[in-house]
Amino acid sequence: MKKTLNEIAVFLGGHVIGDGRVVIERIRGIDDAGEGDLTFVANPKYRKKLETTGASAILVAPATVCPGKNLLTVADPYIAMGRLLALFHPEEEEIPGIDADARIEAGADVSPEAVVYPGVHISRGARIERGVVLYPGVFVGRDAVVGEASILYPRVTLYRRCRIGRRVVLHAGVVVGSDGFGFADPGRGNTKIPQVGIVQIDDDVEIGANTTIDRGTIGRTWIQRGAKIDNLVQIAHNVVIGEFSIIVAQVGISGSTHLGKGVVIGGQAGLVGHIEIGEHVMIAAQSGVHKDVPPHQIVAGTPHAPHREWLKMQACLPKLSEMRAALAALQRRVADLEKKTEKEQA
Amino acid sequence: MKKTLNEIAVFLGGHVIGDGRVVIERIRGIDDAGEGDLTFVANPKYRKKLETTGASAILVAPATVCPGKNLLTVADPYIAMGRLLALFHPEEEEIPGIDADARIEAGADVSPEAVVYPGVHISRGARIERGVVLYPGVFVGRDAVVGEASILYPRVTLYRRCRIGRRVVLHAGVVVGSDGFGFADPGRGNTKIPQVGIVQIDDDVEIGANTTIDRGTIGRTWIQRGAKIDNLVQIAHNVVIGEFSIIVAQVGISGSTHLGKGVVIGGQAGLVGHIEIGEHVMIAAQSGVHKDVPPHQIVAGTPHAPHREWLKMQACLPKLSEMRAALAALQRRVADLEKKTEKEQA
Amino acid sequence: MKKTLNEIAVFLGGHVIGDGRVVIERIRGIDDAGEGDLTFVANPKYRKKLETTGASAILVAPATVCPGKNLLTVADPYIAMGRLLALFHPEEEEIPGIDADARIEAGADVSPEAVVYPGVHISRGARIERGVVLYPGVFVGRDAVVGEASILYPRVTLYRRCRIGRRVVLHAGVVVGSDGFGFADPGRGNTKIPQVGIVQIDDDVEIGANTTIDRGTIGRTWIQRGAKIDNLVQIAHNVVIGEFSIIVAQVGISGSTHLGKGVVIGGQAGLVGHIEIGEHVMIAAQSGVHKDVPPHQIVAGTPHAPHREWLKMQACLPKLSEMRAALAALQRRVADLEKKTEKEQA
Repeated sequence: MKKTLNEIAVFLGGHVIGDGRVVIERIRGIDDAGEGDLTFVANPKYRKKLETTGASAILVAPATVCPGKNLLTVADPYIAMGRLLALFHPEEEEIPGIDADARIEAGADVSPEAVVYPGVHISRGARIERGVVLYPGVFVGRDAVVGEASILYPRVTLYRRCRIGRRVVLHAGVVVGSDGFGFADPGRGNTKIPQVGIVQIDDDVEIGANTTIDRGTIGRTWIQRGAKIDNLVQIAHNVVIGEFSIIVAQVGISGSTHLGKGVVIGGQAGLVGHIEIGEHVMIAAQSGVHKDVPPHQIVAGTPHAPHREWLKMQACLPKLSEMRAALAALQRRVADLEKKTEKEQA
Repeated sequence: MKKTLNEIAVFLGGHVIGDGRVVIERIRGIDDAGEGDLTFVANPKYRKKLETTGASAILVAPATVCPGKNLLTVADPYIAMGRLLALFHPEEEEIPGIDADARIEAGADVSPEAVVYPGVHISRGARIERGVVLYPGVFVGRDAVVGEASILYPRVTLYRRCRIGRRVVLHAGVVVGSDGFGFADPGRGNTKIPQVGIVQIDDDVEIGANTTIDRGTIGRTWIQRGAKIDNLVQIAHNVVIGEFSIIVAQVGISGSTHLGKGVVIGGQAGLVGHIEIGEHVMIAAQSGVHKDVPPHQIVAGTPHAPHREWLKMQACLPKLSEMRAALAALQRRVADLEKKTEKEQA
Repeated sequence: MKKTLNEIAVFLGGHVIGDGRVVIERIRGIDDAGEGDLTFVANPKYRKKLETTGASAILVAPATVCPGKNLLTVADPYIAMGRLLALFHPEEEEIPGIDADARIEAGADVSPEAVVYPGVHISRGARIERGVVLYPGVFVGRDAVVGEASILYPRVTLYRRCRIGRRVVLHAGVVVGSDGFGFADPGRGNTKIPQVGIVQIDDDVEIGANTTIDRGTIGRTWIQRGAKIDNLVQIAHNVVIGEFSIIVAQVGISGSTHLGKGVVIGGQAGLVGHIEIGEHVMIAAQSGVHKDVPPHQIVAGTPHAPHREWLKMQACLPKLSEMRAALAALQRRVADLEKKTEKEQA
């Protein structure tokens, strides 16, 4: 694809500074970009690379200045770049049809407008709606539902009765509906509590590779509309993830914990069970959250604390051995003073 | 299924307070329960919901009081609820048989009383005992064994020569017997040490989705009877997990570490290699355990400490910047006192 | 296989102390070894077991003394044991050929000298070179490449256009090339940024079970030659892992972070995005690394600090509540002194 910078400016609703007639053939990272490439600066950390990039043009935020370079200013360079990537890299269309080497059990309902690759297994009672793509090795359990235009990448496993909404993307190896970890008398009897609930995933959710989402003990584990979950995340039984929440890789959320809408959790954080996280809470990476967090708070650390307090605490930690030495020195000086004062008063 | 509360009381060996003739059709969570539903309160946190639930009856611990509600008191409401879930949600029977689209290599020994779905691969020399269920996409390596009545959910991979006992449950995506991470001269030569041992999993073990268990370098990695392991856990080469231990999600256990029986490890904890964890030790979530822990201890934190000490330490952490300021103030006051005292003595 | 200790000494270039005519039939762990077994002591922790082992001979470091035992001294017992394991446990040869139950799309190029098991799916435009082994359930996306003699264990998923070098080992369940986690306006709009880059894995890399490696947003995520990555690791988009680096299980590396060569990262550590880790840096297990680390440093903790500082800080943590009490006591004593001094001066 070839487009002039001017044409791209019209597409994005941006403003050209420099030569709008330059021809763009590719989108590239700032270190790799050369002639014919458009690149971008979204993270201020990389602004210094503006001057040295060989790119033919650069997507930047408004008020960016770099004499001699062709700039295209847009309100949000990251979103704009996303739109250009979609333009320059259109997704390949899949041809609908059910491969003869897929196994569709009797009593499954598969839309002829779905794409079902060989090696897919669809159990009885399951429903696959139109526009769905099931890649090789996908397993759909009994009475499970996959809604319109959802994509299940290779080796996704959907246990019985789980429900996937529309336009959901499940990356390779995702497991939806495995048994929750419920054992009574732990460490002694380990009596299994049957896990008879389901997982419900609403529209426009995306879930990263090898993430696991356990079914409810009773009722449901529920991932609400528009939530995005990264790779290798663990979501336990009866958790609720609010709309548009963002869960970064390797986070673990324990049973029956509920997240409000728009919660953002950094990588490797852990949340105990049975707590409520208010809407738009932000939890820093590697935090350990052990109790309810009110809406709109930013928390960090283990155990978690408001982010400002945590920063103060963190600043002190490297001073700890110094503090300890200072304390010991003070103890000696005070003892010395006490002795002198006593003597004088004697 | 319909049962009166009286019938359920007989089944569980419990005691009805209220109307025993009320008819129960379903088991439901306390927030969702309505007419015809039995619910339960096992976690004291939810006791306050007793009064507002619409359930027809509630399973509770002895001595629970809630006038106007139909209560069923039992010694352990959580275990009792597990028994009711099994009663109301009987597992579907699988019809034994080996699907024509499974691949059984010559020299594999598969019981005709096993259930083998399409897309299963059983390598030569492997043995599958009766009552085993192998879901689509399961891979059984050469000379591996799966004991009676074990269930391997979709996409479980069992490498060569590994041995699974009886009534074992491996959830989707579990990997048993991948090579241990053994490289000499790390960061320089990275010379691979062949991993020629096996994994042995004893009877009645359950392992969660996408968990990985590496084979022994020599000898075995050994998961003993009745242990329960959650999702996304990493068990390294030559680890031993004692009987009835409980390992919560995302825990990592490094090579050659041995756990006694009944050890309980909270989510995301990490254990270094070559240590001994005594029986019935409890390790808090996110802990980092770096040396042996004697039997029956409760430890927490990184580096781990006895739980009481850790609590004390945790209580101080938020006071750290305050302590630092107090220390600085004291230093000034003591310097001031010293000056005055010196002057007086001069 | 049977070899005398003298023959093994010649093979390894080692030196026998004791009876070189003793016959060795197996390699075994020090606790399990008996007659006919050779064992080893690589970790000094196990040196005390030298005296009690029943092994016929023991591989040890030079200058090890144990009267009455047959010792074989070698420069590096761990590497030597690796060589012996390879000798005593030769890998089984696979017979080349493409199984009729593998699905090769039109336009894929598969070497007749590759081993392709049933249930493998190779998409159009993909290239599989000679000596490659693809186990059941492997998925190779469009235009992807797998180089000579690489082994992909069951259920490995390789998304479109990703490139695997020669002699690469990908363990079961590895996902290469899933979409990076790129969403603009997180927690609100969650606008997906298309991920159009690739993953490039160079020669002699080994990657552990269920590890996930996301494709670049643009450009590539790049695992360089000889790097070894353990199980359940998360590598985000556009990360670069330097040659011969070692990444232990459950580590998470965020987007666009670059590692130099020979970096060693302990288990469960987390690295934020957009940072540079210098060559031969060592990062302790469970660390949280939030900014650049210069070459050859050893760091630990969250936030990370030089290892020595971190050790000092860690030593103080258990003293924290004691320090707090001491501080309070000092405050009282100083107040007391101040009162007395004031009185005297009055």
